[in-house]
Amino acid sequence: MEPTTITAAAEFIRNGELTPSELLEQCLARIDRYEDRVKAWVYIDRDGAREQASRLTAELKTGQNRGPLHGIPVGIKDIIDVFDMPTACGSKRWANSYARRDATCVARLRQAGAVIMGKTVTTAYASFDPPPTRNPWNLDRTPGGSSSGSAAAVACGMCLGALATQTGGSITRPASYCGVYSLKPTHGRVSVDGVLPLAPSLDHVGIMANSVRDLALLLQPLTGYDDESAPRPYLYRSEVEQQQQAWRRTLSALPDFPATAGPEMRAAFDAFRDKTRAAKWAWNELPLPPSFADAPNFQYTVMAVEAAAYHGARMARHPDDYPPKVRSLIEHGNATSAPHFVNVMNHYKTMRDEIERAFVDGWRTLITPATTGPAPTAETTGDPAFNAPWSYTGLPTVSLPFAWGADGMPLAVQLTGDRYFEDELFALADALEADIAFERRALPL
Amino acid sequence: MEPTTITAAAEFIRNGELTPSELLEQCLARIDRYEDRVKAWVYIDRDGAREQASRLTAELKTGQNRGPLHGIPVGIKDIIDVFDMPTACGSKRWANSYARRDATCVARLRQAGAVIMGKTVTTAYASFDPPPTRNPWNLDRTPGGSSSGSAAAVACGMCLGALATQTGGSITRPASYCGVYSLKPTHGRVSVDGVLPLAPSLDHVGIMANSVRDLALLLQPLTGYDDESAPRPYLYRSEVEQQQQAWRRTLSALPDFPATAGPEMRAAFDAFRDKTRAAKWAWNELPLPPSFADAPNFQYTVMAVEAAAYHGARMARHPDDYPPKVRSLIEHGNATSAPHFVNVMNHYKTMRDEIERAFVDGWRTLITPATTGPAPTAETTGDPAFNAPWSYTGLPTVSLPFAWGADGMPLAVQLTGDRYFEDELFALADALEADIAFERRALPL
Repeated sequence: MEPTTITAAAEFIRNGELTPSELLEQCLARIDRYEDRVKAWVYIDRDGAREQASRLTAELKTGQNRGPLHGIPVGIKDIIDVFDMPTACGSKRWANSYARRDATCVARLRQAGAVIMGKTVTTAYASFDPPPTRNPWNLDRTPGGSSSGSAAAVACGMCLGALATQTGGSITRPASYCGVYSLKPTHGRVSVDGVLPLAPSLDHVGIMANSVRDLALLLQPLTGYDDESAPRPYLYRSEVEQQQQAWRRTLSALPDFPATAGPEMRAAFDAFRDKTRAAKWAWNELPLPPSFADAPNFQYTVMAVEAAAYHGARMARHPDDYPPKVRSLIEHGNATSAPHFVNVMNHYKTMRDEIERAFVDGWRTLITPATTGPAPTAETTGDPAFNAPWSYTGLPTVSLPFAWGADGMPLAVQLTGDRYFEDELFALADALEADIAFERRALPL
Repeated sequence: MEPTTITAAAEFIRNGELTPSELLEQCLARIDRYEDRVKAWVYIDRDGAREQASRLTAELKTGQNRGPLHGIPVGIKDIIDVFDMPTACGSKRWANSYARRDATCVARLRQAGAVIMGKTVTTAYASFDPPPTRNPWNLDRTPGGSSSGSAAAVACGMCLGALATQTGGSITRPASYCGVYSLKPTHGRVSVDGVLPLAPSLDHVGIMANSVRDLALLLQPLTGYDDESAPRPYLYRSEVEQQQQAWRRTLSALPDFPATAGPEMRAAFDAFRDKTRAAKWAWNELPLPPSFADAPNFQYTVMAVEAAAYHGARMARHPDDYPPKVRSLIEHGNATSAPHFVNVMNHYKTMRDEIERAFVDGWRTLITPATTGPAPTAETTGDPAFNAPWSYTGLPTVSLPFAWGADGMPLAVQLTGDRYFEDELFALADALEADIAFERRALPL
C-alpha cells in the first residue's frame, strides 16, 4: 500500500489497510531519499508529525474517522502560519519568527484530520527570485515559483497535498512545471488570515495534489464547509456524476490568449485538442472581452503597488533582505502614480462586468495552456503570462498535466470557470483527466 | 406673506394663504434686486420655473399637495445635472453642455414638488479657485466655496433651499460664511448619480436652507423615502420631541480640533459655550482617536489623487480650462505614489474603526466651530480645516449660525454625529437653534 493520491490513501485508511502513522513514514522516507537534491522544505517537524499521526491512528481505533483527509500528510507554503513553526517567507530576518497560531486555512485542514508535516520553500516574499528548490523531473530546471516547495514536495510524494498561494502565477505555474494538479480558487473563497500579503487584491490561497479529485477533497474543509460541525460523508462522487450529465463536455478556447506560448506548448496543445475531440469533447472558440487586453499589464501594476504599500518602508530599513526581483517589483510600485492606480482599479470593475457578461453569453469552462512551455532552467521561476490574468480577474482555475515534452518535462492545461464555480470546474477536469489518461512516470532521481 | 423658511412657506401654502406662483415671484424679485452684485447664479430658468410653479398651483386647486416641498423654489449647484439646463461645472469648455436628464437628487426634489429655478455658481470643478460670487453680507468678502452660489442665493432669499456638494469643506464653509444652515449627510446617503465627481470616496451631496427644520424637510425625499410611493404626511415634529426627551442636551467638544481657529472664533465659541451652559446644556470634553491626527493631511491626498484620476488626462489636453488652484490639486495627485495612497486607504479603515468605537464609548454629538473665523476677502474661498476631516470620515454634519462677528459677518457652529444619525443631529440642532435665538438681520445690500 503506497498510495500517491489522497483519494487512494483515504480508501486504504477507511478500510484499515493503512494507518496514518504508516502513511506518514512513507512520506518521510521519500523526504530522506530526495530532499537533499530537491530542497522542497524549509522546516520539517518529524516529531510533531509523528505525534499527530499516532493520535489520528488512535482515533481510528476508537471508530472515529474525520473524513477523507484523516491522516493525510500535507505541506504548508512558508508564507502561511503554522503554530509553533517559523514563518520565514523567504526572508533572512524572519528565519526564526515563530507563529503563535495557525492560519485559518491550516486550522481547518488540521481540524479535518490532515497531518501538518512542515513548511515548504517559497521564493522571497512570494515574488520572483529563484529559490533553492529544484525541479524533481530535472534538477537543472526550476520548479517554478513562488510555491516552489509545495509543487516539488507533492511531485516527490513527500506529502500528498500542499497549501500554496498565488498573486501572479504562483500556484498554477509551479504545479504545471512539476507535473502535479492545482486549484487556484475564486479570489476570497479561502481565507488569507495568517498569510503574508503580497498584494491583497490579488492574493489567493490554493492547493496542489496528485489528482483532480484530491483537489476537491482538500478544498472542502478550506472553504469553511464542516468548519464548526461534525465531519460529513464525502459527497463529491455523486455530485460529479450529476453535473457531468448536465454538462455536455464543452470547452471554450480563447483565440491567442496570451500570444506568448512557445512552439512546444502550441504543438502539444493542438494534439490535445485533437485527442479530446476524438473523445467527443466539443470546442468553441470565443472572443475575449475588450477590457481583457489590459489585464496582464494592470495585474502587474496592482501587484507592484500593493506590494510596495506593504513592503516599501521595511525595504528601506533592511535593503539587504530584499533580493533583486522583489526589489524591482517594489520599486516599480513606488514609481507608480496614485491616479494611474485609481484608474486601474476602475478598469478592474469594467472588466469584471464584461467577464460576467461573457459567462452569461456563452463562456463556460475556458481551456488554455497552463504555461508558455516546459520548466526553464533554474535561473528564473518561469513566465506567469498564462496565469496572471486569472489572478487579476479572481476567476477560479484548475490545472492538470496532459503530456510530456521532448525533454521529459511535464506540460499542463488550465481550466477557468465562473466565480465560485469550483464544483463545475472539478467535474469537467475530472472527466478530462479520465479521458486523456495522462501517463504517470517514475521520478528520474 | 414673505416667508424666508421652507417650514413657514409650506404652512402658508397648505393654508391657501400663498400660492407656489406667488412664492416664486418673491424669489425672482430678490434675484432682480441682488443678483447683479451677488452673482449667485450661472443659469436662471424664469420661464421654466414659472411653468412648474403654475402647474403646482393648479395641483393644489384640485386638492393635491405633494408635501412640505410643494411649490418651494430651489437652486441647484452647477455640477449637478438638471434636465435641459447646462452643467458647466465652472469650466469654459462645458459652458453649453446640456444635461439629458435630471441627477437622481434633482429628480427626487422635483417629484416632491420643488420648483427647480436654475443653476448656482460653483468654483471650477468644485475645487478652490475663487468664483465670481460675492458674500451678500459684505461684497468684498468671499461667500466661501465650492458651493458659493447656493449659499449666497439662500442667504438672499433668491430661493428657499439649495443643493450643494462637499469633498473638502464645500457645503459647511460657504453656508457658515453666508449665515445659512447646512447639512452634509453621511457619505453615500444621498446619491451622486448625475453629479460631476471630484473625489468619489469623499464626494457628498447636501443641502442649505434658512433653518434646521428646513434641512430635515429637504433631506427627506433625497434619501429615497417616498421615492416610488405617494407622499406621506410630515412626521418630523413628533420624532424630534421624542428624541429630545431621550437626549438630555449633551454636547461633546473636541480639545483643540483643529488648532487653527482664529481669535474671533475662539472668543465667540467660548461665549457660545457659556450661553448654552446657562441654558442647561451639558458639555463633555472628549479625546480624539489617535488616527484622527492624520485625517486633514490624508483627506487632501485622497481628494488630490482621485481628482487627478478623473481630470488628469483632460487637464493635459485642455490646460487653459484649469485655473491655478485646481491645477495644483491635480498636480499634487499626479505626484502622489500609489503605495502611499494604498496606505492612506488602509489608514482610513483603521480610523473608521476607531471612530465607531469612540461613538460607542461616549461620543454623541460633537460640537466644534464650523470655520476658522468669518469669511475672508474674495481672493480665496477660505480655510476648510474644520470641515475636511468630516468629509474624510464621512460622518454627517449640520451647521448653524450662532453669532455676528465685529465686522458684521456671521459665525457658525457645526454638529457632527454618528453615521446615518442625521435625525439625532437635527433634533439636537433644532433645540440648540431655539435656545441660542440667533438674531436675524436684514441684508446690508
